[in-house]
Amino acid sequence: MLSIVQAAITAVQPGHLLPHYLRRQGRHLTIGATTYDLNDGRLFLISVGKAAVPMAQAAAAILGDTIDAAIVISKHLPPDHRLPITDYRFFTGDHPTAGEKSVQATTAVADLLAQTRANDLVLCLISGGASALLTQPRIPLPAWQTLNQALLASGCTIQEFNTVRRQLDAVKGGGLARLAAPAPVVSLILSDVIGNDLAAIGSGPTVLTNETPDDALAVLARYGIAAVLGTAVWQTIHTALADFQLPITDYHLPAPTNHIIGSVRQAALASRQSAENSGWTATILTVHLEGEAREAGKFAAALAKELPPGHCAILGGETTVTVRGSGMGGRNLELALAAAIALDGWPDVAVAAFATDGDDGPTGAAGAVVTGETVGYGRNLHLNAPQFIDNNDSYSYFQKLDAAGYGPHLLITGPTGTNVNDLTLIFRNP
Amino acid sequence: MLSIVQAAITAVQPGHLLPHYLRRQGRHLTIGATTYDLNDGRLFLISVGKAAVPMAQAAAAILGDTIDAAIVISKHLPPDHRLPITDYRFFTGDHPTAGEKSVQATTAVADLLAQTRANDLVLCLISGGASALLTQPRIPLPAWQTLNQALLASGCTIQEFNTVRRQLDAVKGGGLARLAAPAPVVSLILSDVIGNDLAAIGSGPTVLTNETPDDALAVLARYGIAAVLGTAVWQTIHTALADFQLPITDYHLPAPTNHIIGSVRQAALASRQSAENSGWTATILTVHLEGEAREAGKFAAALAKELPPGHCAILGGETTVTVRGSGMGGRNLELALAAAIALDGWPDVAVAAFATDGDDGPTGAAGAVVTGETVGYGRNLHLNAPQFIDNNDSYSYFQKLDAAGYGPHLLITGPTGTNVNDLTLIFRNP
Repeated sequence: MLSIVQAAITAVQPGHLLPHYLRRQGRHLTIGATTYDLNDGRLFLISVGKAAVPMAQAAAAILGDTIDAAIVISKHLPPDHRLPITDYRFFTGDHPTAGEKSVQATTAVADLLAQTRANDLVLCLISGGASALLTQPRIPLPAWQTLNQALLASGCTIQEFNTVRRQLDAVKGGGLARLAAPAPVVSLILSDVIGNDLAAIGSGPTVLTNETPDDALAVLARYGIAAVLGTAVWQTIHTALADFQLPITDYHLPAPTNHIIGSVRQAALASRQSAENSGWTATILTVHLEGEAREAGKFAAALAKELPPGHCAILGGETTVTVRGSGMGGRNLELALAAAIALDGWPDVAVAAFATDGDDGPTGAAGAVVTGETVGYGRNLHLNAPQFIDNNDSYSYFQKLDAAGYGPHLLITGPTGTNVNDLTLIFRNP
Repeated sequence: MLSIVQAAITAVQPGHLLPHYLRRQGRHLTIGATTYDLNDGRLFLISVGKAAVPMAQAAAAILGDTIDAAIVISKHLPPDHRLPITDYRFFTGDHPTAGEKSVQATTAVADLLAQTRANDLVLCLISGGASALLTQPRIPLPAWQTLNQALLASGCTIQEFNTVRRQLDAVKGGGLARLAAPAPVVSLILSDVIGNDLAAIGSGPTVLTNETPDDALAVLARYGIAAVLGTAVWQTIHTALADFQLPITDYHLPAPTNHIIGSVRQAALASRQSAENSGWTATILTVHLEGEAREAGKFAAALAKELPPGHCAILGGETTVTVRGSGMGGRNLELALAAAIALDGWPDVAVAAFATDGDDGPTGAAGAVVTGETVGYGRNLHLNAPQFIDNNDSYSYFQKLDAAGYGPHLLITGPTGTNVNDLTLIFRNP
């Protein structure tokens, strides 16, 4: 099972995915099906997101000094973050809430792209987290942060949240393409959004939308945000939206080209292939799994109970946890624990749930693997599994089991260098 | 799709299922693989549960006047409830909370079975609802009802609830077999319990368990029931459990024989067959679906999004609704509406969710069928689907759509004469 987990993570490494979309012959670049002649122009590389460093490294390995200048904005700087090119700069931005570091990094991008000409090319590498890491709010940063927090607490959907962010942030909803103009923009995108909505991944820095300030105002009205913010902040926001004009460049902006180079689908396909190579039959049941993690765990268990012997069922997606307790856990760990409870005593079944970025919530574990014996082990240690679920304390539960020698249940990979949502693998022994 | 729904319901009709388990040649009865010679003995028929009437009719059609006497206890008495035999009596009991009518009906059963001899045979037909319809509490009825309500509100599991009921109710946990002694008992059981735990269906009137009064006391202690009930009721219960002795008959009780004659698995198999007959490919993904209905709807949608064209995926089980609103709905209707929201705008997919007894909650509908267009129809009518979910008002939502000519969404079958949980069918057009 662990080798199948590993195969899924390996398949969505930028170093594995990028070469499928990016080739170079001399100063001719082929991106997707289009070839760009750089004999008369320069190439700028902008890489932003949680996978920005490995994406930039994968691109630079192919492009080398064809890249005239590069900027990389990531959440953390891994120890080995060098690029095999001459002119590049690294920034760490703020995540998950945008702050001054993200604004400064974005200013550097804007300064770099201010010098572009029509025969240059801007290659963008976008991964999850880019919303917070690349930001140029149209309102003062404190007001922006207050607004973000109010929207997060409002119960609005992520689509509605993004509608507001795209109208009030100059680099979202195609804003990075505006900065790059008159040079054309091509983006290679690692998707951490279920369904791969281009405008949602990193709030779509190179994706033009038809939204207007009125759409943003409608969302703010629907959730009574004005009342939450207080008059001063609300006035600032309202004025910014009322004054908003599309940059004149939009009327002669080259249409950006966006390619999804990897998503949870590739991870699911790789796990299926790996399972088949190991003699299992395997089916991908969905790459759109959503909903409450503990309920998804019950659902995985229900599928496990009817799985044919020797079969592996694969669910891709990302669940959420409604936090009510004070424990330590993550969505995959809670899904796995809920599955273990529902499978208590069932023979021959196992469920592995993990985040492809190696980080499930704040736990340091990628996820967990459970069987029909797991909850029995817990009973031996006088651990009440439902109580751990209720306290959102799934990590502690598995840690205690593993510490007592009933393991390993925790899947610990460390940061994987990629980020394409989660997989749940369900097995029934042959 | 409606023909597939119909095929599933038809397959689990008692008249369809019973002949597989029950045959007669003269006064020889074959039940399952065992043949009983009634030349020297009498045959008593006890049918209890929501499907008691059609089950009794199906049995009487085979056995005729081989049946010496029959008692049928049901929730409602359908207009045509005659049996083609001489000596039979019908009772309507109280459901879902046991009351005086159920106690009186059970007393009639006890009186009838008091006359049995060792060479008689007692044939029991058990279906869902028998817990409330067949009851002989060891404590006064008001105390029994107070205890039942306290347990329902305590958050205990249905297994724990049944443990208490089996210890404090003389006909549960094998009690009906004790009444039948010295005659042997054979039960034919229509399961409305996920996983078909014999001791759980109707609280197992013909199923002996190893539970003791201490097990019941442990459950009561775990949920602090004593404090909820007050001293007088608690004393009554505690005394009844302390005084409890297994009836002496248990030590020479013939082991009851129990056959599950139908469950949601048969309904799932029939829907698969019907789908295949109509040119679909079809897979049963589970017959163990559990969990919160609106979350299960999201999972059904996630599966629909990845279904191969021309395929039908089948989920059997029964979800629950945590009621927070004041609307009109049921678990299948809420599942269907949640699926519709998640599938908003998706082409070529449909989800049907329905109760095989034809009654989803208090709505009078069996369930609903939705497509990627459903929520768009609602928008045309200025209906906000998530608000209807939040108010547990799924029935009203579909009713408004159907009334406006966007339908039919509601599946209305009337009482089906059977009761084996629910099915969710997921389709993707060829």
